[in-house]
Amino acid sequence: MTWIDETKTLNHPQTSFDSTTFEKDSFFGHLRSLYAETVLQTQLDQLKKQGSYDAFDLKWRDVYNVRRLEGGKTRQDGIPPSLFWESDVGKWIEAVCYFLSSEDTKDTPQAATYKQAMDHIIDLIVKAQQDDGYLNIYFTAVDPTGKFRNLRDMHEMYNAGHLLEASLAHYRYSGSRKFLDVMIKNVDCFINHFGPNKDQKHGYPGHPELELAILRLYALTGEKKHLDFGTYLLEARGVKREDQGGMSYFEYEGRERGLEPLPTTMDLKCPETYNQSHASLHEQDTILGHSVRAFYLITAAADLGGKFYDDAHRLWTDAVDRKMYVTGGFGSEPRWEGFSEFPYHLPVSIKEGGCYAETCASIAAMMTSERLLYRNLSGKVRDTMELCLYNAVLGGGDLQGKAFSYENRLATWGDESAKRADWFEVCCCPPNLSRTLGMLGGYTWRADVDSSAKKISVIVYLYMSCTRVIDLPNGRATIKMQSGMPWKGETSWEMDAPEGWTWEITVPKPNYAANFQIKPAGQAGPEGFLTFSAGHSSRASSTMDLPVRVLASHPLTGQDTLTVSRGPIVYIAEDFDNDKIEASHSHFEGVGLTEDAKFETRELDIQGQSMVAIAATSGVRALVDDSDELYREVNGSTPARKWKSVDSELVYVPWFARANRGGRGHVRVSMKRACE
Amino acid sequence: MTWIDETKTLNHPQTSFDSTTFEKDSFFGHLRSLYAETVLQTQLDQLKKQGSYDAFDLKWRDVYNVRRLEGGKTRQDGIPPSLFWESDVGKWIEAVCYFLSSEDTKDTPQAATYKQAMDHIIDLIVKAQQDDGYLNIYFTAVDPTGKFRNLRDMHEMYNAGHLLEASLAHYRYSGSRKFLDVMIKNVDCFINHFGPNKDQKHGYPGHPELELAILRLYALTGEKKHLDFGTYLLEARGVKREDQGGMSYFEYEGRERGLEPLPTTMDLKCPETYNQSHASLHEQDTILGHSVRAFYLITAAADLGGKFYDDAHRLWTDAVDRKMYVTGGFGSEPRWEGFSEFPYHLPVSIKEGGCYAETCASIAAMMTSERLLYRNLSGKVRDTMELCLYNAVLGGGDLQGKAFSYENRLATWGDESAKRADWFEVCCCPPNLSRTLGMLGGYTWRADVDSSAKKISVIVYLYMSCTRVIDLPNGRATIKMQSGMPWKGETSWEMDAPEGWTWEITVPKPNYAANFQIKPAGQAGPEGFLTFSAGHSSRASSTMDLPVRVLASHPLTGQDTLTVSRGPIVYIAEDFDNDKIEASHSHFEGVGLTEDAKFETRELDIQGQSMVAIAATSGVRALVDDSDELYREVNGSTPARKWKSVDSELVYVPWFARANRGGRGHVRVSMKRACE
Repeated sequence: MTWIDETKTLNHPQTSFDSTTFEKDSFFGHLRSLYAETVLQTQLDQLKKQGSYDAFDLKWRDVYNVRRLEGGKTRQDGIPPSLFWESDVGKWIEAVCYFLSSEDTKDTPQAATYKQAMDHIIDLIVKAQQDDGYLNIYFTAVDPTGKFRNLRDMHEMYNAGHLLEASLAHYRYSGSRKFLDVMIKNVDCFINHFGPNKDQKHGYPGHPELELAILRLYALTGEKKHLDFGTYLLEARGVKREDQGGMSYFEYEGRERGLEPLPTTMDLKCPETYNQSHASLHEQDTILGHSVRAFYLITAAADLGGKFYDDAHRLWTDAVDRKMYVTGGFGSEPRWEGFSEFPYHLPVSIKEGGCYAETCASIAAMMTSERLLYRNLSGKVRDTMELCLYNAVLGGGDLQGKAFSYENRLATWGDESAKRADWFEVCCCPPNLSRTLGMLGGYTWRADVDSSAKKISVIVYLYMSCTRVIDLPNGRATIKMQSGMPWKGETSWEMDAPEGWTWEITVPKPNYAANFQIKPAGQAGPEGFLTFSAGHSSRASSTMDLPVRVLASHPLTGQDTLTVSRGPIVYIAEDFDNDKIEASHSHFEGVGLTEDAKFETRELDIQGQSMVAIAATSGVRALVDDSDELYREVNGSTPARKWKSVDSELVYVPWFARANRGGRGHVRVSMKRACE
Repeated sequence: MTWIDETKTLNHPQTSFDSTTFEKDSFFGHLRSLYAETVLQTQLDQLKKQGSYDAFDLKWRDVYNVRRLEGGKTRQDGIPPSLFWESDVGKWIEAVCYFLSSEDTKDTPQAATYKQAMDHIIDLIVKAQQDDGYLNIYFTAVDPTGKFRNLRDMHEMYNAGHLLEASLAHYRYSGSRKFLDVMIKNVDCFINHFGPNKDQKHGYPGHPELELAILRLYALTGEKKHLDFGTYLLEARGVKREDQGGMSYFEYEGRERGLEPLPTTMDLKCPETYNQSHASLHEQDTILGHSVRAFYLITAAADLGGKFYDDAHRLWTDAVDRKMYVTGGFGSEPRWEGFSEFPYHLPVSIKEGGCYAETCASIAAMMTSERLLYRNLSGKVRDTMELCLYNAVLGGGDLQGKAFSYENRLATWGDESAKRADWFEVCCCPPNLSRTLGMLGGYTWRADVDSSAKKISVIVYLYMSCTRVIDLPNGRATIKMQSGMPWKGETSWEMDAPEGWTWEITVPKPNYAANFQIKPAGQAGPEGFLTFSAGHSSRASSTMDLPVRVLASHPLTGQDTLTVSRGPIVYIAEDFDNDKIEASHSHFEGVGLTEDAKFETRELDIQGQSMVAIAATSGVRALVDDSDELYREVNGSTPARKWKSVDSELVYVPWFARANRGGRGHVRVSMKRACE
């Protein structure tokens, strides 16, 4: 069995990542070491504590029931938290396989521990599978009669998708088919029950994930039934069918269970938008519902291509143009962990009416972006993917490798602290972070080899310090990139290929770059990119300035605020650096910034990671609260807002590095715009 | 049976209203005619259509069950809409009694129809009462085993309170004890079951109302048991008790029903705040939960006085200083029809994350304000009561007397229209409006007679055109007020009392008044009031300018908008007058106003009601949307917001008069503040 389409396969992050080796002493080299040496161990400890590590032994039923009766583990939505356990261990296994497959991280001191744990879990999985291929542990151990009766809420397909991704990673890492064969059999079980035919149920996952995993499986097997099933899952979604009484599947399935046709929770105008089943994907013109579900769904759509690519691009654009936080976060609605039903509705805190920005949602947005880029190079898509990575995604973990965030609000309020947590009852985000960092090399660039023209094309998506090996029909080529990003705009490349070969290198000109220069001179490529040609053994370099940029929000957001950024990094003010200001203007709520504020950059080191902090040295304002009136008359002598100058600087740190140094955990990204 | 405390009684709106007669051809004279001749008839027709008109015949059970099975009448919260029917007919009867007791409206052509309908309902009520005094129709007809088992949600005490108020109004109007005796027996039934003693349950209403009604009953009967029961209801609320297993009543009651201890709906951080049962009233320092419940509760507290007055004043102040819309609306949260959990969180539309501003909430705020004023005269409290009346309350009905609003959002969005509805499944607001207009004279002013000093004290709360008769030990006095308000600042008084008597008149100096003058010269009274003395037969007059005022919101609301007001009237822009601007800036979302905008006033007539419209003749701006970017870089040449001048005027009409002339129903009260 070999990957069916070598070119395509090379350029899926899940399969191309291990061609890239990161420079140890670089921004991401440092982070990858942290994840390989500390984060994976932290997460393993938590999986053991949580119970998911042993859950495939199917003996945890009693533990589950005891907990449930004790009232300590029952979620308000009635979904047992253990229902997500497969996905938790799946993503952890996937991450381990990626790190242990990578040259720069394979020799981590914990490697043996991870391997042993992974083998333990996989052994249990093999034994847990039922004769018909069925695998879900909750329904096997606790509720056997509930199988396949509630695809909308009960996550059988979602979990299977994550385990399938894990098994593909494990096969690539180990060469063993042990885990993979279990999952192929599990997929067959789904195919036996679900599909477009008359003798099948026409279900699809309430939480998309299996779709994209099946397409990854197809890239390995090349079996038509796998492509067909992935296509079916996307085509069936939200479609009303005659043989379902004119209903779409979740409504039909609900009636079969004897329930009210639709859930009435969560105050959604259309409850089916929660899981994007309100219409067929082709008919959806605005992105709605649970953010992670939406992005997982359109990642598969972008991957499948054709009309589904258009759907993915349209919905991605709606998300990015009208529903994205400045940090690259998505989802302003805690109620449904998702998108507002309204464009430009982006409250930044609980106090303003919501803000969720789940770490997983931005990881999922990176996944969609990468698939979109694969089919159509676009500076906007690249810039967004980079924005998510450096901010919303990286900010989901602390710099000690011990704590994680799930929600990522842009401002705290009241007793709230931005401090991260050790773990979560539903812990999707932490291992999702790990696998993303694990396959980072796959997000960095893509490489295509044209053997007949003896041309190697490399498209750089992200400026990082790493080396990629590219296999040629006879021999190999390497491209080494060294970059000061995200702090310095200098990047250089060393290309080395056998004589007779040439390179075509395409590099991004980010939206934040000033004075961008490249040697050799590049031709304008697709929007936001430049392309140059180079001999088989050659060098190139680029530079750009990274001025401090002040960002305003679209007026229809109603957020008349200013945000400080530099390069791909978005900044945040914490009480730790601004104790006095924050003490008198709680959570920076009364702090303002003028459009012509002046800034200085400073070097900063947090947990051994060096970075650039920014200080506003002028233009800092504070509201003068000389009136308690809720509504005050404005006239010549009384303006609507009264600001006073603040003597001290306002210090900002990178968003991802927030809440790493103690303090009260009071933070704010965007300050009110002060007119004077 | 006479009213126990003549002075106090005179100054409850429910019992003092009929001393005042409105001038037919005045602002409120016109409105009161509309309510007496059209609105009461409209509402009677709706009560018949709804089924509540006949519901006390207890034969509607089948109708109810059929509707329920058809799915057409089941609310999401599981509460049958018929559960509110007593309160609907109760408020309508109360309103009828007030209008038919008033000199200016008693001879309405529909008087006989109303009397007949009222007698019909009261006859049914008499027959519907059970032997033990129990009366609730739902539990009598549909669910007899459910009686008194769910005070939290099922409204037995709430309904009884409204019927009790109706019976007091009916007794005052008719002199017949028929209805009143039923309700006194019903109160005895409650007293038999509930109270502080060991052999009683310690319940209180989930929706406060009985508290304030009982205190009204006590004002008539003077019976200690009525005062004690009212006091008990306020004292018991939110208190954890040993004999309830350390729980407060609703938790205890829920466990008795075998349910989870607390409701988990509505996303409230503390679900018990929904009905203000999270703590004793003395311990509540911020106003939370369902707005109408909160204000009904603190109305009773203000009435009871002592420490409860302090509670009412503290919570009223929190509501008015931090949780009130500029229209005098309350409640930004549709989910719990109530207050935000956060101060200064006042989104003005659904698109911004919510806005409720239920008509009943502002009626209830008027009720609390009136009780606060009774104990401590305060310009702030008066100004707020007047703001609510002229805006949030009056705006709850149209000017044809045919349609009503329940929610009163300050801006529409998308497909939304500000058009009012014929009726509502739960129709608390329309008859609440009617009874408020019915007893309006009781809100206008208070009068106290000091027989020994032969002094008549009148405190004017509201400038209106009406005459009050004041009974004296031997004879009577009259005070006639003629006022151009709310459109013109001129008011005059003619006082006439027997020789030997003097007058002390206290009049408000509103917060919006400019150049306030009074003859004879007044002494400064309590904050916001002036007092003057006058001979037994004398005249006085006052004038004030009513300039157009531009109001800004407190900076911590995050609403950097400007609102146009004049006198007590808040203004709104509708597409009807501003077709072109609204067509290009949907719902006025992209329209701005500068702080130095210029205005002209215009006369306007809608449905025979003359009023003042306002046109902004300069300072109108529109956002230049030259970029689709969600986040845009700000620098010297690119400001955060780009405005262009708008050629046409922006026409505003009074908020209460909105949605009376057709059009798209696209409206907005507050425009974005444009800096340039």
